[in-house]
Amino acid sequence: MTRPFPVLLPNERLDRLGRRDLVIIQSPDRFNFSIDSILLAHFVRVRRGQRVLDLGTGSGVIPLLLNALTGAAELHGLEIDPATADMAQRSVAANDLEGRVVIRQGDLREAPDLYGHGVFDVVTANPPYRVPGTGLISPSPSKSVARHELSCTLQDVVASAGACLRYRGKVAMVHLPERLADLMVLLRNRGLEPKRLRLVHPRYGRPANLVLIEALRGGRPGLVVENPLYVHADDGTYTPEILAIYGEASL
Amino acid sequence: MTRPFPVLLPNERLDRLGRRDLVIIQSPDRFNFSIDSILLAHFVRVRRGQRVLDLGTGSGVIPLLLNALTGAAELHGLEIDPATADMAQRSVAANDLEGRVVIRQGDLREAPDLYGHGVFDVVTANPPYRVPGTGLISPSPSKSVARHELSCTLQDVVASAGACLRYRGKVAMVHLPERLADLMVLLRNRGLEPKRLRLVHPRYGRPANLVLIEALRGGRPGLVVENPLYVHADDGTYTPEILAIYGEASL
Repeated sequence: MTRPFPVLLPNERLDRLGRRDLVIIQSPDRFNFSIDSILLAHFVRVRRGQRVLDLGTGSGVIPLLLNALTGAAELHGLEIDPATADMAQRSVAANDLEGRVVIRQGDLREAPDLYGHGVFDVVTANPPYRVPGTGLISPSPSKSVARHELSCTLQDVVASAGACLRYRGKVAMVHLPERLADLMVLLRNRGLEPKRLRLVHPRYGRPANLVLIEALRGGRPGLVVENPLYVHADDGTYTPEILAIYGEASL
Repeated sequence: MTRPFPVLLPNERLDRLGRRDLVIIQSPDRFNFSIDSILLAHFVRVRRGQRVLDLGTGSGVIPLLLNALTGAAELHGLEIDPATADMAQRSVAANDLEGRVVIRQGDLREAPDLYGHGVFDVVTANPPYRVPGTGLISPSPSKSVARHELSCTLQDVVASAGACLRYRGKVAMVHLPERLADLMVLLRNRGLEPKRLRLVHPRYGRPANLVLIEALRGGRPGLVVENPLYVHADDGTYTPEILAIYGEASL
């Protein structure tokens, strides 16, 4: 397959995403996508023909993966940092996906105004994890915005997701276990009922270090806690489930 | 050791609890204690000298086990069903624990009035799991009250626990995963911050069928999701952790 090589800016590199011939542009100057986004893309359930919005899309890894993994009709990614949004857009072009994956620069708090209310079937978000005042703030603006709740709080993310979702639409998020109670309370306060929860543990016998959660707009109470996902086996290698998820991704 | 044999009523039997020489009276006419209560007694952290209240204590298994497992100074059990409370009281006598374990018959919604506000360091509860209208209601009143939220709702349990706990006191509960979002929202609404969560899975790869949760009165947000507890190994036998918990209990 011949495709024009994407324009890479200084410091950027082209990585393979391990699904079909997906590629993605990343840069050490920015927050690189991590296992968290990949796990979220594999956790969320998207049906054929659905419209998906990824809030705070960063490199665009979630819409790019969801395009490969699901039959979504349309995938949108919203990113506040202009240079990161531009990089994500060039990744879309590098994969010839301009018709299906649409990156937009903007503030996720304005997502309902930008896209409309109740217009998405699925919203995904791998939001900043840290409340300002905890952990080191990166001197790089695009990294600090991705890691800390500087440009948006968890409440903002949940509110935007709820407003953009149609009735019975789903939001799927990845976050830290320490924020799980916050997350459940915020989701429910917005009429988003937690329905599926999966804990990610670095290895057997260890506490969870990530939570994956899916909530249904207008859903009735009733949560399923799925089997835990282990990242590493006792010998330090990746578990078969993680290897299946990664494919040949250059992580 | 010689002790008077406890008075057993028709249909009742004396079971060993597998800790020291603990015994407990049970009856097929009533809701027998299950693995849930035993897991809760092993999950909750009670420090030396603390005062503990078990809401809806049933056979009294939780205070009896906590007396054996911890250095609690005083353990109270409140049970609404008079015959069940009487049976629990005879179990306390059978173990010569009248000075340390105190069973009382009463409605857990009145616990703060019965015992006082803010007087316990730890409150435990293995409450009825089912909302009326789901599942079969047992024709036995003592069984139906133990299984279904007939005499109290989850909200009642959380409210009573919160009122009986001192500031920085802890409540530990066992419940179904499907109620986890309810539980977190109710706890937080009462100023009880979820701090530890452990999922119980029947075996590896299966969804959780129980949740163990501990919340701190006046605690700051920040939850730890501990390693999952597996009940059965792949070959159907109990896991080493469960065997260590059961001891020689005749389950």
